[in-house]
Amino acid sequence: MSDTNESRLAGLNLQLPPTPKPAGLYRPAMIVGNIVYISGHAPLRPDGSRVTGCIGADLDLESGKLAARHSGLAIIATLRNEFGSLDRIKRVVKLLGLVNCTTTFQQHPAVINGCSELFVQVFGPENGVGARSAAGANSLPGNIAVEIEAIFEIV
Amino acid sequence: MSDTNESRLAGLNLQLPPTPKPAGLYRPAMIVGNIVYISGHAPLRPDGSRVTGCIGADLDLESGKLAARHSGLAIIATLRNEFGSLDRIKRVVKLLGLVNCTTTFQQHPAVINGCSELFVQVFGPENGVGARSAAGANSLPGNIAVEIEAIFEIV
Amino acid sequence: MSDTNESRLAGLNLQLPPTPKPAGLYRPAMIVGNIVYISGHAPLRPDGSRVTGCIGADLDLESGKLAARHSGLAIIATLRNEFGSLDRIKRVVKLLGLVNCTTTFQQHPAVINGCSELFVQVFGPENGVGARSAAGANSLPGNIAVEIEAIFEIV
Repeated sequence: MSDTNESRLAGLNLQLPPTPKPAGLYRPAMIVGNIVYISGHAPLRPDGSRVTGCIGADLDLESGKLAARHSGLAIIATLRNEFGSLDRIKRVVKLLGLVNCTTTFQQHPAVINGCSELFVQVFGPENGVGARSAAGANSLPGNIAVEIEAIFEIV
Repeated sequence: MSDTNESRLAGLNLQLPPTPKPAGLYRPAMIVGNIVYISGHAPLRPDGSRVTGCIGADLDLESGKLAARHSGLAIIATLRNEFGSLDRIKRVVKLLGLVNCTTTFQQHPAVINGCSELFVQVFGPENGVGARSAAGANSLPGNIAVEIEAIFEIV
Repeated sequence: MSDTNESRLAGLNLQLPPTPKPAGLYRPAMIVGNIVYISGHAPLRPDGSRVTGCIGADLDLESGKLAARHSGLAIIATLRNEFGSLDRIKRVVKLLGLVNCTTTFQQHPAVINGCSELFVQVFGPENGVGARSAAGANSLPGNIAVEIEAIFEIV
């Protein structure tokens, strides 16, 4: 009945990846007061594999955008593991999206939209859109295609 | 009479760019409590065009520093649009400045000073200086020369 | 007797670098409420020199990891200068580690672990581990090998 994050997620029939494991000595999520800081997340597929490659060379824009969506799904998997329910999430505050790409690539915002469009679907058109920066990286851990970190407000 | 952000801005006779439009699915500014998160801002000229190019190849240090000033002016335009008055801004908390540059470029802090010097002029010598990071990016959206995101404390 | 940050630091017999000086118009640390934002820190040796070079070309993984530890020591020097005592630090909230590296480098998390392992030693296994992102940068200020910014919760 109610239009909650969990009900929207259920309605989307998405397949979440396994709970992301840290790639080093850090926590996937860190809570301070009403804020949760989410570590940089790789594009994790439901089978646990990661989308790798350089956008503009190995991958095209659409593949990059799908990778950003996979990073968003991985962030959702981390949030559900951390809080039990996505209904603890009040809103997206800020995203930083780093794109593994060539020096001539220019469509970083369109890539990271893959994550932002997912967050609108899950958190709603008002609470799913926050501040954002998108930039190129000459390399990312394990050659992942995108890495997205996030700040959410929680209740 | 009073030494406010708005009075300082008026005294500088600056020409602000048009209110920045998001390049993707995000908000230019997001408020949480007494903090406003400002999205990565392009160097926007008063005519609405953006400073593009790779510093160290297409642009020299001075042009890069001027680009950073234009990103700062764009942030000020966003703040005024969001709050109506710059006097809602208490202080600069943190900047992240990304520089579109060659692999041999080393003067990122001098580039981003173009924004920080503007913020000192507008927000004052105490409140205009916060924490900051500056780094190189192998590419930025639309080939912009610099991208600056910010955190401000508000009243 | 008590297991404090300062007692742990003393027990490690570490040699801290001189207090880091800003490379531009910014503060090394900025406090807002119970949060301190730490600017991007270079890998500073006790003699005041900085670890420079591109990891994957000029420096190997172990040298990069040591550089990240030096950035962590520089952050600790800044915290002690700011607060007088590390016991004002409650916990690590988030790190962003940027690695000056080749386009084919993939082990950014292992590099930044050099800082995270230090923070576990100093702030303890619970409070020394927060959220984290690690990414490549095509260049960093003064050709430093790594740059690390941080957010800490304070008491």
